[in-house]
Amino acid sequence: VRCLSDYDEFALIARIERAFRDQRSPQIVLGIGDDAALVRPRRGEDLVVTTDALVEGVHFRWETQAPVTIGRRALNVNLSDLAAMGARPLGFTLALAAPPSLPIRRFGETVRGLALAARRYGCPLVGGNVSRARELSLSVTAFGAVKAGRALTRRGARPGDRLFVTGTLGGAALALARAEAGRGRIRRAPEPRLRAGQALARMRKCGPCIDLSDGLVADLEHLLEGGPSGRRLGAELNARGLPYATGLRAQAARLGLDAEALATAGGEDYELLFALRASCASAKVLTRRLQVAVTEIGTVVSRPGISGLSRIARAGWRHF
Amino acid sequence: VRCLSDYDEFALIARIERAFRDQRSPQIVLGIGDDAALVRPRRGEDLVVTTDALVEGVHFRWETQAPVTIGRRALNVNLSDLAAMGARPLGFTLALAAPPSLPIRRFGETVRGLALAARRYGCPLVGGNVSRARELSLSVTAFGAVKAGRALTRRGARPGDRLFVTGTLGGAALALARAEAGRGRIRRAPEPRLRAGQALARMRKCGPCIDLSDGLVADLEHLLEGGPSGRRLGAELNARGLPYATGLRAQAARLGLDAEALATAGGEDYELLFALRASCASAKVLTRRLQVAVTEIGTVVSRPGISGLSRIARAGWRHF
Repeated sequence: VRCLSDYDEFALIARIERAFRDQRSPQIVLGIGDDAALVRPRRGEDLVVTTDALVEGVHFRWETQAPVTIGRRALNVNLSDLAAMGARPLGFTLALAAPPSLPIRRFGETVRGLALAARRYGCPLVGGNVSRARELSLSVTAFGAVKAGRALTRRGARPGDRLFVTGTLGGAALALARAEAGRGRIRRAPEPRLRAGQALARMRKCGPCIDLSDGLVADLEHLLEGGPSGRRLGAELNARGLPYATGLRAQAARLGLDAEALATAGGEDYELLFALRASCASAKVLTRRLQVAVTEIGTVVSRPGISGLSRIARAGWRHF
Repeated sequence: VRCLSDYDEFALIARIERAFRDQRSPQIVLGIGDDAALVRPRRGEDLVVTTDALVEGVHFRWETQAPVTIGRRALNVNLSDLAAMGARPLGFTLALAAPPSLPIRRFGETVRGLALAARRYGCPLVGGNVSRARELSLSVTAFGAVKAGRALTRRGARPGDRLFVTGTLGGAALALARAEAGRGRIRRAPEPRLRAGQALARMRKCGPCIDLSDGLVADLEHLLEGGPSGRRLGAELNARGLPYATGLRAQAARLGLDAEALATAGGEDYELLFALRASCASAKVLTRRLQVAVTEIGTVVSRPGISGLSRIARAGWRHF
């Protein structure tokens, strides 16, 4: 099996360049191949920058995920952060580190996954770096643009705000649990809610927004920390109204897992969680505007703490 | 010895935040702590983006370099890319991966090095990501601003152009060789030539520019690939006129090394190499304008290939 040690650094960089060759953007003045890339924001736009890395053995295992899915996921989790700010993607850089023993096929498929996601969401690769390391890691920095002053931050929740979430919950945690139990690989990469975030940023009286990477409870806590003058707020959730992923209850039972825990603490769903003033649109109207299913899941209250769930579970996610 | 496994991810992130707490920039609208950072370029500016990573065992070893130097270097090599584009730094993101067994002191010193460099060059940390891994890696993405259309690229060399280099050559390779021979640790991080690059970008009739990371010969070849309509050009160098680092010849001899090879193939000097039309300023005038010693080292010629050196040595740098 041919592996990375059969190639030199420049040959690998050339392979990456080829995978992205036909991807262009009018706002990328200068792409791959110089000391740095040049991005030209439109007038009156702020630039949005986010960094997230996937590391082999920490964020994925080859046994449970196809390389192309790993590649797509590496970009999509970053695009999800852009979505949570209401931004339009402009481009990304990649710092790729890989062991010399990595089969070139796996490398190629991973890069292909990145290129597929880049094309799908209009976010070309503009630069990067390739290095040897003891395990594969994909450090992505994505940048996007948003009208100045209109970015969706995590701040600004107020008591009385209604809480909404896009899409469904628990699907990612279920897929991971199934894969770890040897019942099939993870096939789907998270879908960044870019259109939804951009539509939210255009709305007036829009409250805070965050993407669900650590799980509903953990990320809701981040939103509740951003109340007026930094005050910590609380939330009353409607556990029965949570939008469970299809088949979550039945499949969780089969694995001996609790569906509510998967949906509230599982993490990695990459849906948007946001708050709106009480007078704002209903879930039905939002579903149309955001072009994705939107569910109202509860209300922001003054008293700190989250109520309404059978139990407050947090993802046991420890990196160290 | 306390090490990273005694801390959770959020505690480590909090430590990083503290190291950068007092660093602000008027163009960073939103820094660490949200889904993404917000950067506001001035009107008529292009955004410059570059990514470079340092990996333990590949780009540095703890035995030969102090952690604070490793941290400074991780940012400075990126700032050097901004310098080579003529850009002013705006901020950077960091994807840090580290083994749980890393002593917390080493982690803290590395972060301190990053913060020192960030303060010195006015480039605050605006976001990032911390993860477990089998070795330390610091993936930095730095961004800066340059007047639209005035960035210094690698393209545009013409036959007859005069070639210049800032500072001195061979010092980094000598320090590395000394350290590997057990004669003292590497103490200095490369100094990004930001003022020089910005001054160059303000000049008219300015040709291409690159920073010396792979070595004079390898990086000069990159410049010579960027001739009119992609034509490959050549260069005649004046080997006797190369600005050797102080003591290079004597110390190289002591280690049994060739001074010219260190200066032309050693790499990592992070000086600027640039070409100017023949009618442009002399090295003396440039030294004043760029606020750093500038040496004229040769001329661009039509015929591909580099002549004038005793031998054409290339760094034996292979990542895989």
